[in-house]
Amino acid sequence: MTETDRPLTLAEKARLTSGHDTWTSSAAPGVPSFRMADGPHGLRVHADRGDHLGLQGSLPATCFPPAVTLGSAWDPGLAERVGAAIAREAKAAGVDVVLGPGINIKRSPLCGRNFEYFSEDPLVAAEMGAALVRGLQGAGVGASLKHFAANNQETDRLRVSADIDERPLREIYLRAFERVVRRARPWTVMSSYNALNGVPVSENRWLLTEVLREEWGFDGVVVSDWGAVHDRVEALAAGLDLQMPSTQGRGDREIEQAVARGELDEAVLDRSVARITALARRAAASRAPDTDPGHDGHHALAREVAARGTVLLKNDGPVLPLDPAAGPVAVVGELARTPVLQGGGSARVEPVRVETALDHLRERLGAAWAGFAPGYPLAGASGAGRGGAEPIADAVRLAASARTTLVFLGPGPAEESEGFDRDHLDLPAPQTELLEAVLEAAERVVVVLSNGGTVRVTPWADRVDALVEAWLPGQAGGAGLADVLLGDAEPSGRLTETVPLRLEDVPSHLNFPGEEGRVRYGEGIFVGYRGYDARDLPVAFPFGHGLSYTVFAYSGLSVRREGEEVRAALTVANTGDRPGREVVQLYTAGPADSGVARPVRELRAFTGVTLAPGERREVELAVPVGDLAYYSIRDAGWRVEPGTYRFEAGASSRDIRLSADLDLDGGPDRELTAESTLAEWRAHPAGGPLLTEALSTAGDAAEQTRRLLADPSVRRIAEQMSLAAIAAIPGSPITEEDLEKLVERLHADGGAD
Amino acid sequence: MTETDRPLTLAEKARLTSGHDTWTSSAAPGVPSFRMADGPHGLRVHADRGDHLGLQGSLPATCFPPAVTLGSAWDPGLAERVGAAIAREAKAAGVDVVLGPGINIKRSPLCGRNFEYFSEDPLVAAEMGAALVRGLQGAGVGASLKHFAANNQETDRLRVSADIDERPLREIYLRAFERVVRRARPWTVMSSYNALNGVPVSENRWLLTEVLREEWGFDGVVVSDWGAVHDRVEALAAGLDLQMPSTQGRGDREIEQAVARGELDEAVLDRSVARITALARRAAASRAPDTDPGHDGHHALAREVAARGTVLLKNDGPVLPLDPAAGPVAVVGELARTPVLQGGGSARVEPVRVETALDHLRERLGAAWAGFAPGYPLAGASGAGRGGAEPIADAVRLAASARTTLVFLGPGPAEESEGFDRDHLDLPAPQTELLEAVLEAAERVVVVLSNGGTVRVTPWADRVDALVEAWLPGQAGGAGLADVLLGDAEPSGRLTETVPLRLEDVPSHLNFPGEEGRVRYGEGIFVGYRGYDARDLPVAFPFGHGLSYTVFAYSGLSVRREGEEVRAALTVANTGDRPGREVVQLYTAGPADSGVARPVRELRAFTGVTLAPGERREVELAVPVGDLAYYSIRDAGWRVEPGTYRFEAGASSRDIRLSADLDLDGGPDRELTAESTLAEWRAHPAGGPLLTEALSTAGDAAEQTRRLLADPSVRRIAEQMSLAAIAAIPGSPITEEDLEKLVERLHADGGAD
Repeated sequence: MTETDRPLTLAEKARLTSGHDTWTSSAAPGVPSFRMADGPHGLRVHADRGDHLGLQGSLPATCFPPAVTLGSAWDPGLAERVGAAIAREAKAAGVDVVLGPGINIKRSPLCGRNFEYFSEDPLVAAEMGAALVRGLQGAGVGASLKHFAANNQETDRLRVSADIDERPLREIYLRAFERVVRRARPWTVMSSYNALNGVPVSENRWLLTEVLREEWGFDGVVVSDWGAVHDRVEALAAGLDLQMPSTQGRGDREIEQAVARGELDEAVLDRSVARITALARRAAASRAPDTDPGHDGHHALAREVAARGTVLLKNDGPVLPLDPAAGPVAVVGELARTPVLQGGGSARVEPVRVETALDHLRERLGAAWAGFAPGYPLAGASGAGRGGAEPIADAVRLAASARTTLVFLGPGPAEESEGFDRDHLDLPAPQTELLEAVLEAAERVVVVLSNGGTVRVTPWADRVDALVEAWLPGQAGGAGLADVLLGDAEPSGRLTETVPLRLEDVPSHLNFPGEEGRVRYGEGIFVGYRGYDARDLPVAFPFGHGLSYTVFAYSGLSVRREGEEVRAALTVANTGDRPGREVVQLYTAGPADSGVARPVRELRAFTGVTLAPGERREVELAVPVGDLAYYSIRDAGWRVEPGTYRFEAGASSRDIRLSADLDLDGGPDRELTAESTLAEWRAHPAGGPLLTEALSTAGDAAEQTRRLLADPSVRRIAEQMSLAAIAAIPGSPITEEDLEKLVERLHADGGAD
Repeated sequence: MTETDRPLTLAEKARLTSGHDTWTSSAAPGVPSFRMADGPHGLRVHADRGDHLGLQGSLPATCFPPAVTLGSAWDPGLAERVGAAIAREAKAAGVDVVLGPGINIKRSPLCGRNFEYFSEDPLVAAEMGAALVRGLQGAGVGASLKHFAANNQETDRLRVSADIDERPLREIYLRAFERVVRRARPWTVMSSYNALNGVPVSENRWLLTEVLREEWGFDGVVVSDWGAVHDRVEALAAGLDLQMPSTQGRGDREIEQAVARGELDEAVLDRSVARITALARRAAASRAPDTDPGHDGHHALAREVAARGTVLLKNDGPVLPLDPAAGPVAVVGELARTPVLQGGGSARVEPVRVETALDHLRERLGAAWAGFAPGYPLAGASGAGRGGAEPIADAVRLAASARTTLVFLGPGPAEESEGFDRDHLDLPAPQTELLEAVLEAAERVVVVLSNGGTVRVTPWADRVDALVEAWLPGQAGGAGLADVLLGDAEPSGRLTETVPLRLEDVPSHLNFPGEEGRVRYGEGIFVGYRGYDARDLPVAFPFGHGLSYTVFAYSGLSVRREGEEVRAALTVANTGDRPGREVVQLYTAGPADSGVARPVRELRAFTGVTLAPGERREVELAVPVGDLAYYSIRDAGWRVEPGTYRFEAGASSRDIRLSADLDLDGGPDRELTAESTLAEWRAHPAGGPLLTEALSTAGDAAEQTRRLLADPSVRRIAEQMSLAAIAAIPGSPITEEDLEKLVERLHADGGAD
């Protein structure tokens, strides 16, 4: 229905389901157009139509640190503020829907777009993503949750099929999407380029309709990633409402023809039109074109996020925060002067202004400033940026003169982007050469990393005094980083992804990035820390790790069930002499006798607690009991196993401070059938006694069976046989008729479900 | 057609497709019955009908060492002799078809039935399996190649679906079957219990007909594993000829009814009947019931195999062979007195006689004999067999009095069997306690392992002087092992499977044994050494490893192509002072710029060469060029990539002595389409120039594109886009019409295939 007197024509309806041009939706009588723009970490609005790959310049906007940095703050409140800020700039620019956040799982550190994503863990991705959605939409600008789904690599991304078994798909790859859709209700969801289990996502009805809408209750608009639709009619039928960008009417005509030929139910089109109409009206009602973009305040927020997202990985001495009184500080590395603010591709924001760490450190260190040496060139890719004896010698001379040398390292501006993946984790060779030379000459070395995906920190990490992971810091990153290095801000960032010792240890290593159009997610649920833990592999720095300038003590963990939640309470104390923010992480393990493979531990909740020196506080974390379920392919649904779960509170996934066990009732018992094994029958509370009773009447055969089963090998074999298979053996103590009666009795007693 | 005057009735034909009883086929006018028996490493014929699980006693027969031991000899000739010997005993017992060999891949060392299988590598499994088939069938007894296919675990084996992508399925799990079927033409193939990619193997038409018969040309009988058929009509339609054992006519009636109802084409039944008839007649024609079983000669052969299959993993000093003149030798460990000859389950042979290592060593060491101490009890499972202070103290006292102490260790008789898998790799705790105590007290320690699947040898392997892997040695194993220990036989066994440092390193670890009825082979082709190498993991002992009492030098590798083969020649010299047999292994790597993931190296050929001290000999190994192919899921076929292959000759997979490169032409170029990427077009010999030409006429758009592509990030993005996707961009330098013409021209020029 429209607001005019007449219903829309078929052509008008079809037109509404595709873009008017690159960035705006089509209009129809009574249905306004709305405008979209890239912008997960800052708005990207093109001045004119620009180049058509959409990769070149856009109008200036606040370049916040991308998701990798924001996520490292482990602070949904901070993400919500960023969302609100982006929404304000969007309103000022006349943008109704911002294409973000991206919440895909970091399956491999090689993925070129990892800087746009939050974590290897679905809970972190969901909490940060939901907060960003709330921030945007709370300010009246729509979010587009992307890239739905299983778009975990750039290699062959337009064609590749992510082949994922349903349990890891549900527990890892869809889980964050489910949580954000259910809790934050994004206005739109963006379908990804890739295929899922052989079916292109944009034409995948199971994903876009059965799971997204029917299971999760999504009532917004599904918009295609730009150019992701292969077959417009199939896509519409699958649940893809809005094709972007414009196809000059071709897709619309295909829809019209399909309806006219009876190949597409017009009701399908009507439903998409209704959703698009609702979105368009909501967008129109929210507009405030005279909004001031608020760039100054947003620059300050960007600085705060950069500081909050910086992760202090190592701090021997402690050498940090820098004490200007302790002696001169040298800065080495072109990245200090020429920062890489963000990764490449559609997310690239044209910053309003840029502050560098070099400027800040030079100014704020005052008399302690020892000088700067670039050490290596940065132009182009790592292979192109060749070092050399001269810049290294300059840097070494400088380092030798200082009490402390900060060495800025990172892959550089051409290595991390949408559109391709890295094929190694190594820093550019000129940089590691520089570092080796500086390590020989310098008294104390602090390495500052700037990168969108993790880099290899061996073999040198053991030899540096401090290691700071600054990620990609956005336009105010130099200021925020200096705040942390100088102690004007307290470091409280934590890793949202494991830093492995080497690429070969990455759980997805054998299956990344796939080949010949398919990528098998062979590691299953064992992604990220779940995989390192399952193989008991050493890592450089574990998931959840990050130091403060102060020290926190944990005590008194108690865990109790309250209704449909488990509540864990503990006390955290700041036992150091500086204020700080601790990120308390709650993991669960088990149940110990699970019928399926379970991770060693999984993050279930986290919270930040800011404490003054000497302060202590009780914190409480809640975990819905349903979150402890695994996805059962046998039941085709989530299943909470009964048993004893261990709740672990820690400062990282490998720094568990406290643990407590809790017994939970599970869901109902599994239904037994003739195909259930002897062991399953025996273990069943109703089936076990019935079987024993049936066997007790079997006489001679039972006696023979008892003798046989006295042999432990025979018993172990028999326990894995189904009762049907046992009944099929001539002379079996249980006949096929007995078995039929047994199953009947079980059902009659109500013990079967 | 039968030999009587009339064609068989429908009922007679149906009856032929199932067993008459547990071990014999049904007969019909003109079609004799034939008899089957278990027996991959020795005949298992039941005296009467016995118990119906088929797990209890049988008539005495020579118990040869099982496949794990025989395979470790890396000698197809030896396997052929064993096959001929088993055939002779089968003839004497009136058995027409022996149910073996088993050639499944050892995907995990935990698989309970690994002792019945040859290797983690399909070439070794195929060469040994084919030899056993030749040995059996050359003597007129049919083989049954089993368990076809992907039956790589015992856990839930009757129901579990092995979920395997087609490339690993073809390259790893079907490859040995393909090779044996094509080269040795077994009379029968046995379908396994499990399902494959969701379809029970016994009802899997793709596997049993399309692959096995239509692709590989198998013309024998497919027989079910005992009780493996779920749906008789489905199974027959899928290509399963003979259901075993008898179902008292039920399956036959189902077939009759299905034919009568028109649900099953009678021609399908006729084809199975024809194959069964041919087999029955062939069996009848080969019978020689008055054959002497030849037990004495076979005992000697069993002793030879036990010696040849023993793998000398470590020999510092060298402490072996034992020198009685060097001082007294003590023997510790119940397994020296009570050997585990074989694993449990349907393969268990009732031995004709048993020789123990204890008896042989005691007798043959003469004056150097220091005594025996059991050290630990062996009864029952490892958990049940508790050690204790007293037996350990006795053993320590004995060891302290000897120059050399042999310590016999192994999982014991109840831990390795058909029907269940192990869940750890550890030796029983009482045994490792014993070993620790002996290591403290003894001067020199030789550990002798007896096990069907590999066991963990850390942390103690570094501390023993010698380590001998004797596997499960069969009835003459004690004699054969003594031959090796005393130097009466030269050790020449080599590992056909990697000995990992720990279970967590096993490539299949995260996915074994699956859950809820499915097991995902997530490691893909990276099974066994392919997986350890791909992750660059240290191992305890690598695939192919094994020492001799002498030393071999390799020199002069040359590699050349001759027609459809690559021939590698090299010289091996015995540079030590004892005779010995070297197993020369030829691996390939590459091609280096492969379009798909390739193992670091893969075994392509091996040969044994026996040399006197000082002797040298040129050996030649041939590799069919087709063996270098990978299975392309895009082409749905095998594909030899063009490029440079490295041929490596070595004494193990991690002891490569020589290497040489060879350039090979590949198959035809891939067909280009509009969906091919820019990179694929550019790389194509015909497509690349055509594309360049097309772009050169594009004028302004081309100029804009050139500017854009000067940015390396943009170039890397564009190269992964399909031409169709590029053409869809408004203002693209190539339009959709251009692209259509381009593809047309390419095909017209013949450059597309």
